[in-house]
Amino acid sequence: MTGTAAARISPETRTLFDRALDREPTPRRPLWINRQAGRYLPEYRKLRERYGFKELAGSAELAAEVTLQPIRRFPLDAAIIFADIMSPLPALGIEFDFAPGPVVAEPIRSAAAVDALPEADSKSVAPEVIEAIALVRRELPAHTALLGFCGAPWTLAAYLVEGRGVKDFPRLRAFAAEQPRALERLLERLSRLMAAYLIRQGQAGVSAIQVFDSWAGLLSRASWERLVRPHLESMLHAVGEAGISRILFVNNAPHLVEAYAGLPAEGLAVDWRIDLRALQERHGDRRAVQGNIDPAILTAGPEPTRAAAESLLDQVRARGHIVNLGHGVLPNTPVESVEALVQAVHREAQ
Amino acid sequence: MTGTAAARISPETRTLFDRALDREPTPRRPLWINRQAGRYLPEYRKLRERYGFKELAGSAELAAEVTLQPIRRFPLDAAIIFADIMSPLPALGIEFDFAPGPVVAEPIRSAAAVDALPEADSKSVAPEVIEAIALVRRELPAHTALLGFCGAPWTLAAYLVEGRGVKDFPRLRAFAAEQPRALERLLERLSRLMAAYLIRQGQAGVSAIQVFDSWAGLLSRASWERLVRPHLESMLHAVGEAGISRILFVNNAPHLVEAYAGLPAEGLAVDWRIDLRALQERHGDRRAVQGNIDPAILTAGPEPTRAAAESLLDQVRARGHIVNLGHGVLPNTPVESVEALVQAVHREAQ
Repeated sequence: MTGTAAARISPETRTLFDRALDREPTPRRPLWINRQAGRYLPEYRKLRERYGFKELAGSAELAAEVTLQPIRRFPLDAAIIFADIMSPLPALGIEFDFAPGPVVAEPIRSAAAVDALPEADSKSVAPEVIEAIALVRRELPAHTALLGFCGAPWTLAAYLVEGRGVKDFPRLRAFAAEQPRALERLLERLSRLMAAYLIRQGQAGVSAIQVFDSWAGLLSRASWERLVRPHLESMLHAVGEAGISRILFVNNAPHLVEAYAGLPAEGLAVDWRIDLRALQERHGDRRAVQGNIDPAILTAGPEPTRAAAESLLDQVRARGHIVNLGHGVLPNTPVESVEALVQAVHREAQ
Repeated sequence: MTGTAAARISPETRTLFDRALDREPTPRRPLWINRQAGRYLPEYRKLRERYGFKELAGSAELAAEVTLQPIRRFPLDAAIIFADIMSPLPALGIEFDFAPGPVVAEPIRSAAAVDALPEADSKSVAPEVIEAIALVRRELPAHTALLGFCGAPWTLAAYLVEGRGVKDFPRLRAFAAEQPRALERLLERLSRLMAAYLIRQGQAGVSAIQVFDSWAGLLSRASWERLVRPHLESMLHAVGEAGISRILFVNNAPHLVEAYAGLPAEGLAVDWRIDLRALQERHGDRRAVQGNIDPAILTAGPEPTRAAAESLLDQVRARGHIVNLGHGVLPNTPVESVEALVQAVHREAQ
């Protein structure tokens, strides 16, 4: 798969990241870090003294600045646009706040509430994110990839139905049992909205996108196949048709990985629970794999980080491997641990 | 396996539950419910108006009363002693409170803190629980089994190191990376303490115990095999040697189920994420299986509950199946849903 938007325009500028995602040989593996723009960085915390999270994510200029902060500090191979998975939802008339996770003003818990959602004009979907992508694109070094992202329809539905992040989302699971048709209509709406949003991100300048699915693991495989898969698949298909490469990140759903691996995506990202080498052995001929150092190890300091990185590099074949953590970097991570990770990955090129 | 303490004393009194756990044919499947003594019951909430949770669990008389409440209301096939997984830990000098989950006064985060734990006299381990078991035994109908329980060593260590239930327990994972030897010593101590505690429960009158492992799923299978398995195995082995039947309940760890299934236990209980029929096909010749209706479905009312129960009974072979939920019954569960579940299970005998 070489059909990324960037590749079609100027093949010579394809980044290390883009090439690894297409499973081409590269001088070393690319590295980026889930939540690399965020609270573990002193420069981010300084901005947060002046601005709330919603202000940062809501302003194209500030979001672009936050996106670039980790790139200025570390030689990472990809930037990911700073936004929230909830950012596109105001286009459906949904109001929310952060406390610190998303809290939805009016949870969706009936078929009527699903059917009352307005049709969204794709140009009204998170214009600040689209503008921030254009701003970052101008400043980002040519060798650094720019990633867009969205939340998976199921994960967005989880917050919309439950109202907020609650352990194991029991209201969501009850809604799935009681109102499966309404839930499917909600997922279908979210799937279409996310496809439009990701395609606009591609037009604005990202060469690849990552879909974050945080809560798929709440479901049995049979329920996931029936309820969730069709909507995730149609979203990914539409994005691929638009020439944008796709990474699917599935958190805490080890029983679904084999099901996910069959979805249309160039890359499969998994958390630290999964044996990445075994995943690569099963799917490495068709998918790049991304991950999966336990982010908690970085909080223990540079030495455990270096050991974990070296062990990962040793176990997972270089070709088609994008190095990352198995989940977001934690707020109490020392910057020195990230430096140790960068050094371990860069040492491979020497 | 027919060597339960109760069985050796008086074979003719073996309950439906005990026989199903030994995979003998029974006129219908037995049923009990994780957290059946608790907040969904009006009579429990009434007691909680007068007593705090710690008071209820700390008094043998009150704990016995709470244990018996669901048995008086529903024809369940087993009672489980009302206690907390933290109940045995004061024997190690550990102080904690509930808010509402356990909060440890001084989290264990160094090798020195592990090594400073005092040796416990097995008679000092939760004497109120042992006394409550004897009280319940006197009042419980002969056809109703009495179950003891404990938290798995890893799950107890999770609270002791993290200090409280925090999403994904990052300090625990960092401690495992930084101080694996100290963590192993902690697990070894907890394993010995829990074995002694479970054996005393058996002597006091339970015929079987359930081990609750809530947080094993935080680990990759390789880490689990290395760090956790030996201690869980030695605990289960010691309990089996004492003639007590064992059910191992693993929550949210679908990638570990095949590893767990090899541990010494008569029964394997899993959450709603797992296909119980497939589990039974793989292990039903050596293990009873227990579970696994999604407890969220019960909050949706009697009709969805009945449908879920009938589907489970239809899919899973009766012999060697103990019906239960896939996790604790939720506080907002209507009593009518539990009645619908009981009816669906009892209908099988007709």
